[in-house]
Amino acid sequence: MTEPMVTFWYEFSSPYAFLAAERVEALAAERGVRTVWKPFLLGAIFREQGPSANLRSPQRTAYMWRDTQRWCDRLGLPLTIPDPFPQNGIFASRVALAVPDDERPAFSRAVYRAVFCAGQKLADEAVVTEALRQTEIDLETAVAASRTDLVKNALRKQTEEAQARGIFGAPTIETADGELFWGNDRLEEALDWSLGRTGAAGRTGGPAR
Amino acid sequence: MTEPMVTFWYEFSSPYAFLAAERVEALAAERGVRTVWKPFLLGAIFREQGPSANLRSPQRTAYMWRDTQRWCDRLGLPLTIPDPFPQNGIFASRVALAVPDDERPAFSRAVYRAVFCAGQKLADEAVVTEALRQTEIDLETAVAASRTDLVKNALRKQTEEAQARGIFGAPTIETADGELFWGNDRLEEALDWSLGRTGAAGRTGGPAR
Repeated sequence: MTEPMVTFWYEFSSPYAFLAAERVEALAAERGVRTVWKPFLLGAIFREQGPSANLRSPQRTAYMWRDTQRWCDRLGLPLTIPDPFPQNGIFASRVALAVPDDERPAFSRAVYRAVFCAGQKLADEAVVTEALRQTEIDLETAVAASRTDLVKNALRKQTEEAQARGIFGAPTIETADGELFWGNDRLEEALDWSLGRTGAAGRTGGPAR
Repeated sequence: MTEPMVTFWYEFSSPYAFLAAERVEALAAERGVRTVWKPFLLGAIFREQGPSANLRSPQRTAYMWRDTQRWCDRLGLPLTIPDPFPQNGIFASRVALAVPDDERPAFSRAVYRAVFCAGQKLADEAVVTEALRQTEIDLETAVAASRTDLVKNALRKQTEEAQARGIFGAPTIETADGELFWGNDRLEEALDWSLGRTGAAGRTGGPAR
């Protein structure tokens, strides 16, 4: 078998992807699993499948933020609830695709903290470029690349790829054998799965994915 | 402080409530937490807030069953996906209310196993009475009580109580201080919360619940 790896599918406007972005690298390193970070646009999928369930009723929305607050408390992070919510992450996602693979996690975490901890606007280009500055990525190159058709098409294609795999929410952790795990609360399970630690009964008997 | 306790709000048609019903007693006993089992009808809440998010798209439904299968594998339980889904749990819920408090968990688990492991019909009264038989509850008394206005009204009132507390899904674990934890995957967190083990930063700063 090749080196264990998971794909970390994330959307910048999602609070649960923010929490997972904070947690995934340490959990993966502990287990010797490699991560590949893939930003995508959940909005494109919601346009087909209907809006986020978390926004469907005031009760659900209130619960989402309370749950996020409890997670932030445990992680020692301040939470500022984005207003409005959700915010547009298209520019941040294009820049994330434009930066080198090994810089993407740090850049993405910087964007998430600006938005969910400091209350800055995700759609504000200055917020995204400040995240580039913090991670010492060459700002002008990354921004210029993000404006090319190459990067725009790559993001569109990556979103289509997510959709084709059955992804409908963020974060989703995909293992090398195509298993999907949805949610910050499934990180450990996904990483264990990638190592073949699947619990007692293994893989048989699952319904169609 | 009084003895730590949580309220376990459950709906018979929910696969995640089935999984939590299998897990909650051992996890609560380990921590010295008392549980109070309260069945309610999620359908009444969905009629107001819109249908289950898990049924909104084929991708979500497929994911729900795959996720449930993985949980069943870990718990060593067979899964039979109920067909149709969801099924009507009103009779089972009334009987659950009619049996003595300390018999409710065993009866409820027997119903869940009949439905989710053996593929029997939740709405079939014979399935529910067979679960009563297995748990050695006086069958005729429980069934007769379930048909009284007293029990019917108690179930309606309990469902309204769930809704008034902001509950929108099953299972929901409610702590004595009114904190809500939604999902089988939040059992441990809810029980720890009931003991005051809330992680680093504690309770402050949460949004309205």
